[in-house]
Amino acid sequence: MRTLRLTIAYDGTNYVGWQRQTNGLSVQQVIEDAMAPLASSADGAPGVAGASRTDAGVHALQQVASVNLASTLPVENVLRALNVRLPFDIRVLSVEDMPLGFHARFHARAKTYRYRLVRSPVLLPFDRAYVWHTPDLADIEAMRHAAASLVGRHDFASFQAAGSTTVDTFRTIERLDIRDDADEVVIEVAGDGFLRHMVRAIVGTLVEIGGGLRPPGDVPRIVRARSRQAAGPTAPARGLMLIAVRY
Amino acid sequence: MRTLRLTIAYDGTNYVGWQRQTNGLSVQQVIEDAMAPLASSADGAPGVAGASRTDAGVHALQQVASVNLASTLPVENVLRALNVRLPFDIRVLSVEDMPLGFHARFHARAKTYRYRLVRSPVLLPFDRAYVWHTPDLADIEAMRHAAASLVGRHDFASFQAAGSTTVDTFRTIERLDIRDDADEVVIEVAGDGFLRHMVRAIVGTLVEIGGGLRPPGDVPRIVRARSRQAAGPTAPARGLMLIAVRY
Repeated sequence: MRTLRLTIAYDGTNYVGWQRQTNGLSVQQVIEDAMAPLASSADGAPGVAGASRTDAGVHALQQVASVNLASTLPVENVLRALNVRLPFDIRVLSVEDMPLGFHARFHARAKTYRYRLVRSPVLLPFDRAYVWHTPDLADIEAMRHAAASLVGRHDFASFQAAGSTTVDTFRTIERLDIRDDADEVVIEVAGDGFLRHMVRAIVGTLVEIGGGLRPPGDVPRIVRARSRQAAGPTAPARGLMLIAVRY
Repeated sequence: MRTLRLTIAYDGTNYVGWQRQTNGLSVQQVIEDAMAPLASSADGAPGVAGASRTDAGVHALQQVASVNLASTLPVENVLRALNVRLPFDIRVLSVEDMPLGFHARFHARAKTYRYRLVRSPVLLPFDRAYVWHTPDLADIEAMRHAAASLVGRHDFASFQAAGSTTVDTFRTIERLDIRDDADEVVIEVAGDGFLRHMVRAIVGTLVEIGGGLRPPGDVPRIVRARSRQAAGPTAPARGLMLIAVRY
């Protein structure tokens, strides 16, 4: 038995998210199906664990997944065999041998997500599945001011999907940068872990602040409220991309 | 009667090209249909003339089109009315009033196209509809050397689609730049006019040179041959984008 680490890029548009669901096709299921012929009969169906459970419509530039396999096939052959079987919107970028027992989710120390906002009056067709069109975003400095008060260890209960049952809602945001490049505003956030919808709720709140609908000084009050209603709306999934996982 | 100039971006993936065809949906037809409700009955069906007849699958960042219209609707309203009717893979970026009789194709002085090549071993899903995957491309300097001998006024008969009936095959290439940005190689070509498939035949030839399949000094011989067989293959449409038209 050996443990492999897969680095995977995918366009999440046509999937119900990373994780297996009964209501539609997940990225995890498609990868597990592509992996099945590589598993020996003793392995059973190979379980592929992903570092991040990306939501439906969320993309990945570098999702990391782990899988245990008895096969002695060289990693280059595993890479090729998977990409031949996978649809074009899911690509395995690399396959590496890891110490037995490496787990992509449990061993992840930090994840980085990128969210793209486009401010031009008309959205380019090429961007449609990958950005949130926010033509009214004006005050990027206000967004940066608000972002600064989210960096560090905080209780992010107000930024967790309504109905979540996660009890420990403290997380650490290491970095929350906002790049302003002409018509495009890119938010990059790195942290030790994220609650369900947390990045999208942060982005939705920052966009309200950038559009003048909410004062930048509002963030500490939102955090204290520990209520999803206190924060801004959940930004659309399509603008979000998992870009790196650190171990 | 007035003449409008439209600047249009489109994803060409799902179209048979710019120009109306009987065998499928063209960008021109979709725009003319969206324009129809703006025309008065005296106008008849509005004819929208595009600067470039992009092939099936070719994209545009800034196609320019002209149309004559009796409507006195302000240009901002024309823009909005069109984008409401158009599908998301075609967007009108701007509408301007022009001197009566302005014609997007006949008055165009130069066009610029961009072709994207990606050399990474595995192609990212986000790039699939917009690049040619050429992992064997190694010698960019050889491509630049070959490109230099295409700049200027030449007989491009060897780079014209087989079966074309165009008699005057002389064209002027003002600029043919090759940018090498890590895994991506971008070819940008500007000229006074292009024969059918000319940019794609040039790219196909340059890719053979960059892959070592053809010496860079081969280009003058190809030009002299005046035969499509002498040049390299026609590069796939999806890597090509019309990026600017100059008047």
